[in-house]
Amino acid sequence: MANGKLVLLRHGQSEWNASNQFTGWVDVNLTAKGEEEAKRGGALLREAGIVPTVLYTSLLRRAIRTANIALNEADLHWIPVIRDWRLNERHYGALQGLNKAETKEKYGDDQFMAWRRSYDTPPPALADDSEYSQVNDPRYAHLDEVPRTECLKDVVVRFIPYFEEEILPRVKNGETVLVAAHGNSLRALVKHLDAISDEDIAELNIPTGIPLVYELDENGTVQNPGGTYLDPEAAAAGAAAVAAQGAK
Amino acid sequence: MANGKLVLLRHGQSEWNASNQFTGWVDVNLTAKGEEEAKRGGALLREAGIVPTVLYTSLLRRAIRTANIALNEADLHWIPVIRDWRLNERHYGALQGLNKAETKEKYGDDQFMAWRRSYDTPPPALADDSEYSQVNDPRYAHLDEVPRTECLKDVVVRFIPYFEEEILPRVKNGETVLVAAHGNSLRALVKHLDAISDEDIAELNIPTGIPLVYELDENGTVQNPGGTYLDPEAAAAGAAAVAAQGAK
Repeated sequence: MANGKLVLLRHGQSEWNASNQFTGWVDVNLTAKGEEEAKRGGALLREAGIVPTVLYTSLLRRAIRTANIALNEADLHWIPVIRDWRLNERHYGALQGLNKAETKEKYGDDQFMAWRRSYDTPPPALADDSEYSQVNDPRYAHLDEVPRTECLKDVVVRFIPYFEEEILPRVKNGETVLVAAHGNSLRALVKHLDAISDEDIAELNIPTGIPLVYELDENGTVQNPGGTYLDPEAAAAGAAAVAAQGAK
Repeated sequence: MANGKLVLLRHGQSEWNASNQFTGWVDVNLTAKGEEEAKRGGALLREAGIVPTVLYTSLLRRAIRTANIALNEADLHWIPVIRDWRLNERHYGALQGLNKAETKEKYGDDQFMAWRRSYDTPPPALADDSEYSQVNDPRYAHLDEVPRTECLKDVVVRFIPYFEEEILPRVKNGETVLVAAHGNSLRALVKHLDAISDEDIAELNIPTGIPLVYELDENGTVQNPGGTYLDPEAAAAGAAAVAAQGAK
């Protein structure tokens, strides 16, 4: 049987990427640049001849629209779609809405990097009466409890079991699955796929809008550790830009 | 139990609506006007406070994009989506791609109206080597046979059983279901919902981009025969415009 493919796509630039604010579960839109990135991601899929059997997205607009725009560009707008909150970005707690540069200045480099990259220390919880809270959002009404903050480990705990139950069996079966999601939910997945340690995952940055392809055999073993970007040069530049966030 | 709702949305203006060509299964895009219509459809959903539990679309870009744009506008981009070929527009056979005014002039009013509005006489079949054929389209690869032409009765035969098995049970159960589809697949559904005769359905025209809401009780009985447009005045004007197609 041919290897299955897992194609990871991080959403294009959002309004709060552009304004350098922590976003998390706040449902901001793409910028015009983000729409262009999505379109380019779709062109890369088309040029690579990738035809996914299914798309998985988060419940957040920036990932959903990135997938819609990319698939429309690739003439794949008609493939089945499954949306699930477990693909959502990490909930950024009380940092949601704050400017990254101001936060870094106010709390110092060490605290700033701990909040952004510590594996198991979440930021302070978001208050339920915050305008950025999701406690009254109908899309999460089916959850026992809406997150108030998350560290990367929390994302691993909610996303990886879903990945193993819902997504991985399709890939083992030889399908090509497209996952349109977020910087930290994709970091959680890549950590799992490449068996990256809790410490080393801090250094991993995933660029926006460039499909990252993993090939898995029928046992679910990754055949190309680290994955293969459809545009490696642009991916390297994009990852460096993500790492530089927090600079003014 | 509260009545369920069935919300029907015909896609906004497509490129071939604008150029007055028969479209059928040819996968043309929306025009800028069509995108605006979709956005307005979304605003009407939002103003009416309608929150569907699920969206059903065809496999065609103009319906998929209309739904995407409308739902994004209504802040409902996150609802689950199911796409199925049985919601597709009527296959227009060998007429696909032809200009409506030229076709009317060449074949005369009677033949033109028979092709457009006869319940059970399909147009001539589309040749498999036509650039407008779907015989090699991967989205239909799972079908035993791809249609080469359809009359409205053929649409009823493929769509209504799917409606009764997949969509109606949800509505009977009190859910609100959004159906984003096409002039003739929605005519087939309205014919069924309102028990319109094979003759009278010829007179029914559905405007683009204006949600049409049916309320059904737990037995599936329509509570508001004819349905309720969210913008009745615009709907009347839109239906008249559809009826006038074929004029130069």
